[in-house]
Amino acid sequence: MITHLALNSHPNPQRVLVIGGGDGGVLREIVKHESVKEAVLVEIDECVIRVAKQYLPDMARGFDHPKVTLCVEDGFKYLSELTSKFDVIITDSSDPEGPAAALFGVPFYNLLSRSLADDNGIVVTQCSENIWLNLNLLKEFRDTCRKVFPVVEYAYTTVPTYTSGQLGLFVCCKNPTANVKIPLRKWDEETESTINRYYNSALHTASFVLPTWAKLVLNKK
Amino acid sequence: MITHLALNSHPNPQRVLVIGGGDGGVLREIVKHESVKEAVLVEIDECVIRVAKQYLPDMARGFDHPKVTLCVEDGFKYLSELTSKFDVIITDSSDPEGPAAALFGVPFYNLLSRSLADDNGIVVTQCSENIWLNLNLLKEFRDTCRKVFPVVEYAYTTVPTYTSGQLGLFVCCKNPTANVKIPLRKWDEETESTINRYYNSALHTASFVLPTWAKLVLNKK
Repeated sequence: MITHLALNSHPNPQRVLVIGGGDGGVLREIVKHESVKEAVLVEIDECVIRVAKQYLPDMARGFDHPKVTLCVEDGFKYLSELTSKFDVIITDSSDPEGPAAALFGVPFYNLLSRSLADDNGIVVTQCSENIWLNLNLLKEFRDTCRKVFPVVEYAYTTVPTYTSGQLGLFVCCKNPTANVKIPLRKWDEETESTINRYYNSALHTASFVLPTWAKLVLNKK
Repeated sequence: MITHLALNSHPNPQRVLVIGGGDGGVLREIVKHESVKEAVLVEIDECVIRVAKQYLPDMARGFDHPKVTLCVEDGFKYLSELTSKFDVIITDSSDPEGPAAALFGVPFYNLLSRSLADDNGIVVTQCSENIWLNLNLLKEFRDTCRKVFPVVEYAYTTVPTYTSGQLGLFVCCKNPTANVKIPLRKWDEETESTINRYYNSALHTASFVLPTWAKLVLNKK
């Protein structure tokens, strides 16, 4: 869901970067998009990749695609030294509280912004906090993103095994007039249903619609 | 959420019936609608009402409203003997498997259909099964509803304490051309946000949007 939401918020995603995502699932979904010419994954912990290949082969097959480049490296360091640019960047790390805390601060978001090819550039951050249990944390993180990006929108996807059954994400765009809630690209309905078990273009838009009490906090300008 | 989704799918709900709902929460929400002249609640177990009044007073205050009539009686029997009609009927019972099984069969749905005032009539059935764990059961129940109602649509609301974090519902309408996904009535945005902590008109529509794998089963004509 998160991958397609990210890529379909960009008019022509050719180069895509994943920070984290060592299970390979995001890669597997990225390469379904024909426009993509290169998908780079930067995972700090090679053990995650190794274990995913052993125990989650259906997710880890993302690593086998010829368009994929794998870097075992600290994502923060990778971005600091980056000279090329990306159209879409997906961060798929652990939570804002803990070892991945640096990936949720303004310095990291400045690096992300600088690494985008142009104003169509999209950053999507998976954020396992949810509106039921962590609304204040989500608000704080939204405020962090807003210091760097003019467009920052919260969406959620349903994952029954996550606490409260939801996984949240933020979609950031450099273009202040972008409406990331409407997908810029769509498959026809038949193709869409064969490519994706979860994502569809109606769900793309619906995933931004929040209950009133959460909307009043997270959608406030 | 479920109550407002039901009542806003009707152009002018004046008489509303609740089968079950002994905690009073649905009643509390029904009487927020100015059009409503009478809300009747039929609960089989007076103990539920008594315990709700004692331990869930914020929900049970629904019973105190002057528009409310309370009947402690079997819902099936109540409908069998009913001579008046309702605009909206909400069933808020326990699960399809167990003591409330009779409330999920064709005979009960025929009674519900007969009890609606006209073709605008809406029946909403809370269905605690969800797409993740009970898709086949939901499909079976949808097929049951379709034997009686020409319009049967599945929606969900997020409840973090429910298994998988979702609570499902079916919206049935006697009018074959009705589109229950679009609310027929709306509050203005400011009023809406003071009246309802959860429901809003955008969420009404979004709650019918399903992941592809569930849509292919439940939305199939």
